Amino acid sequence: MAIVVQKFGGSSVADSESIKRVAKRVGAAFDQGNQVVVVVSAMGDTTDHLIDLAKQVTKNPPKREMDMLLSTGEQQSMALLAMALQHIGYPSVSLTGQQAGIHTDMVYAKSKILSIDTSRLEKELKQNHIVIVAGFQGVTQDNEITTLGRGGSDTSAVALAASLGADVCEIFTDVEGVYTTDPRLVPKARKLTSITYDEMLELASLGAAVLHPRSVEVAKQFNVKIHVRSSFNENEGTIVQEVESVDKILEKDMVVQGVAYDLNTAKVTVFDIPDQPGSASKLFGALAEEKINVDMIIQSQQREGVTDISFTVTRDDVERANEIIGQVTKEIGAGDFSFDSGVAKISIVGAGMITNPGVAARMFKTLADQSINIEMISTSEIKVSCVIRAELAKKAVISLHDAFELEHE
Amino acid sequence: MAIVVQKFGGSSVADSESIKRVAKRVGAAFDQGNQVVVVVSAMGDTTDHLIDLAKQVTKNPPKREMDMLLSTGEQQSMALLAMALQHIGYPSVSLTGQQAGIHTDMVYAKSKILSIDTSRLEKELKQNHIVIVAGFQGVTQDNEITTLGRGGSDTSAVALAASLGADVCEIFTDVEGVYTTDPRLVPKARKLTSITYDEMLELASLGAAVLHPRSVEVAKQFNVKIHVRSSFNENEGTIVQEVESVDKILEKDMVVQGVAYDLNTAKVTVFDIPDQPGSASKLFGALAEEKINVDMIIQSQQREGVTDISFTVTRDDVERANEIIGQVTKEIGAGDFSFDSGVAKISIVGAGMITNPGVAARMFKTLADQSINIEMISTSEIKVSCVIRAELAKKAVISLHDAFELEHE
Repeated sequence: MAIVVQKFGGSSVADSESIKRVAKRVGAAFDQGNQVVVVVSAMGDTTDHLIDLAKQVTKNPPKREMDMLLSTGEQQSMALLAMALQHIGYPSVSLTGQQAGIHTDMVYAKSKILSIDTSRLEKELKQNHIVIVAGFQGVTQDNEITTLGRGGSDTSAVALAASLGADVCEIFTDVEGVYTTDPRLVPKARKLTSITYDEMLELASLGAAVLHPRSVEVAKQFNVKIHVRSSFNENEGTIVQEVESVDKILEKDMVVQGVAYDLNTAKVTVFDIPDQPGSASKLFGALAEEKINVDMIIQSQQREGVTDISFTVTRDDVERANEIIGQVTKEIGAGDFSFDSGVAKISIVGAGMITNPGVAARMFKTLADQSINIEMISTSEIKVSCVIRAELAKKAVISLHDAFELEHE
Repeated sequence: MAIVVQKFGGSSVADSESIKRVAKRVGAAFDQGNQVVVVVSAMGDTTDHLIDLAKQVTKNPPKREMDMLLSTGEQQSMALLAMALQHIGYPSVSLTGQQAGIHTDMVYAKSKILSIDTSRLEKELKQNHIVIVAGFQGVTQDNEITTLGRGGSDTSAVALAASLGADVCEIFTDVEGVYTTDPRLVPKARKLTSITYDEMLELASLGAAVLHPRSVEVAKQFNVKIHVRSSFNENEGTIVQEVESVDKILEKDMVVQGVAYDLNTAKVTVFDIPDQPGSASKLFGALAEEKINVDMIIQSQQREGVTDISFTVTRDDVERANEIIGQVTKEIGAGDFSFDSGVAKISIVGAGMITNPGVAARMFKTLADQSINIEMISTSEIKVSCVIRAELAKKAVISLHDAFELEHE
C-alpha cells in the first residue's frame, strides 16, 4: 500500500465550499488504495486577519505569542477538512503539529523541524484513517508551540513524506506545475514534466513562488519525490526528483530549464571599507545574526587601503538591514552606504549548465542585444544570475526565454 | 504572596480595545503584589463563527473535530492578552489547556477536568510571569484536545484556583455580582454581599446565568473563594464561600436569598407506563446515557396497572429527548407522550430554608394570590421550585421578590 502525502495551501481551503472540494480530492486518493496524509495551511486570509489583530494590540507582537496565535489558523482548517471527509464517509482524524510529533527547534516564527516522531501518525494510518496534519507548526522539546515561517506548510508536507517513507508528496497549488518561466509574464512559457531538486531549488530561491526552497532542500536530502500540480484539475503537473542516471543528464540537450526573476531584491553598497582582516566578516556576521539573507556579494578592487562591497538582500529586510549596517559601518570605520530597491534579479537555471561553458556568455549577449545593462553577476554550477534595472525585468525574461528556446521541449 | 485567579469571558475580550482594557486590570492585580493567573474565553462571537463554519461543512460535525476547532478560540484570545500585557510592560506567557496541564476525561464537547499538573504553571509564576490560560479546554491522557462544554471557562478558572491554592478566584462579568433576582426583570433586585456555595449552586442551576453550576460545585468541593464582579468598574461584587460558623447561619434572619427563573425548560409527560419494576429506570437510563438532564420528576397515582410520569428537560434537549422517548415508550409498552415548552421554572433559594417550614407555604400562597397555577413542585433542603406557565414568570418573580422582602438586607 502506497503512502501519499498531499498538501493544500490557504487558497485551496479558503471557505467551506473549497474545503468540501479538497475532501473529495483526498477521498479519491484514498479510494485508489493509498494511505493518505494531508497537510493544510490556514484558510485564505485567516493568517492576515490574525496578524491584523495582533498589530491592533501591539506594534511589535512578541514572537512566542505570535506563534501561539497564528498556529490556530491551521488547526481550524484541519478540523474542518476532517469534518468534511467524515461527512462524505471517509474515516479521518486531524492532528496538531504537537500531536503529529513534529519536533522543532526553539526559534519562534522561523523554527526548523528537527525530527518527526511518527508513532501517532502510523497508529492512525494502521486504523485506516486519513490523517490531516496542521502545516506550518511544530512543538519544541519544552512543549512550546512554534511556527516554521514562510513556506512552512510545504516543508511540513515534505518532512512528513520523508519520515513516513511516502511514495510521493503532492503539492496542490493554483498553477499547473513548474514552468520554464512565469506564464503570466511569458505566455509561451512551457510546463516542465520533471525537474531536479537542484534546479527546483534555484528556481524557488530565485522567485518562482510555486515551492519554497526549504521544502525542496528537505526533499533533496531525503529523496522525497514531489509532484507539483493544480488543485483545480486532474492534469499531471511537474515531478521534482533526482534524475535517475548520469546517462539521462548526458542525453539531455536541454541545458537551460527555466528563467526566473525576482523583484523582491535590493542592492546594498557599503563604501570605503578598511581593507583589514575581519571587516567583511563583521558586516556579514551581524546580518546573519539577525537572519538577514545576503546574496550576490561583490567586492571591488582595493584602492588606497579601502574597498567597496555590494550585495543584495530581500526588500522585506531593507529596514532591518539599514539599522544593522549603520551600526557596523561605524564600528569598522567604513564610509557611507546606499540602498537601491529599483533592481531585479534575472536568472537562468539548468543542471546541464556546468558542462556547457557557452551558456553564461549567451545570457550576457542576449541582455546586451536588448540594451540591458548588467549591474551584478553571480554564478553557480546550475545557474547564472544578473542584477538589472527592475523596469527591464520583463523584457529580459522574454528575450532569455526566446534565446534558449524554452517553449520547445 | 497571594495567588489570584482571574477569569474574563468572551464579551470582556471581544476586540483589541477590550483586550487592552483587560490587560490593565490584570496588571493592576499584579502591581498589588499578587501572583496572577488569568483564564480567558474566546473573543466575542468567535465560537459562534466557528460553529457556523462547521455547520457549512457538515450538518453533524463530529465532536472530536469540533473540539479541535473550537479550542482555537481561546488560544487566540490568550495570545492576544499576553501580547497586550507585554506591550504595557508586564512579563506574561500564555498556555493552552495542554500546556497548563489541565487533564480531562475523554468525553468530547462535555469533558470533565480530572486533574491539573501545575508544574509548568508554578514554574512560570516563580519566574514572576503573569500566566494566561485558555479556558474551556484540556487534554486527555491520550493527548487529545477536549472542550469542557457550557460554563467551561468558569470551571477552568475555579479548578486552577483549587489546584494552585489561590486566595481568590475572581470571575469578571457584565453584571455587578449575584442579585436577589434578575435586575432586568425586577429593578428592586439587590446585589448580595455574599452567598454560600449551595445557594449559588441552586441559583445557577435555576437560571441565574452569572456562574455555571459546574464551577460552583468544584469551588465548593475545594473550598475556593469566588468573587463575582463587574469587568467595567472596581466595585466589590458578590463573594461565594462557605459561611464561617453555624452561629452565623442561626443569626441570619434572611431565609430566602434569591428568586430564580428558568425559561429554558420543557415539561414532558409519558402516559400509561406499565407499572412494572424497571419501566422508569429504562426511560431515565436511556436519557442519562445521552447526557440529557432530567429534573422535577413526578409520578402520578397508579390506576389499572399503568401510571403517568411527568418531568422537565432543558428546551435545547427537546429534539433529542423526543427521539429517545419515542423508542423507549415502544420498548416498555407505554402509551403516548407529550412535550410542553410553554412553561417556566420559578424557584426560591436560601440556606436557612430547611429550618423554616413555613417558607414553601408562603411561596404557594403568594402564587395563588396572583392566580398563578402551579403545575409541578420540587423541593430540596435549600430551594423550592414550581413549574408554571411561561407567560406568568415575570409576575411570579416580582411577587415572590416582594413577598420575601428581598429588596432589604
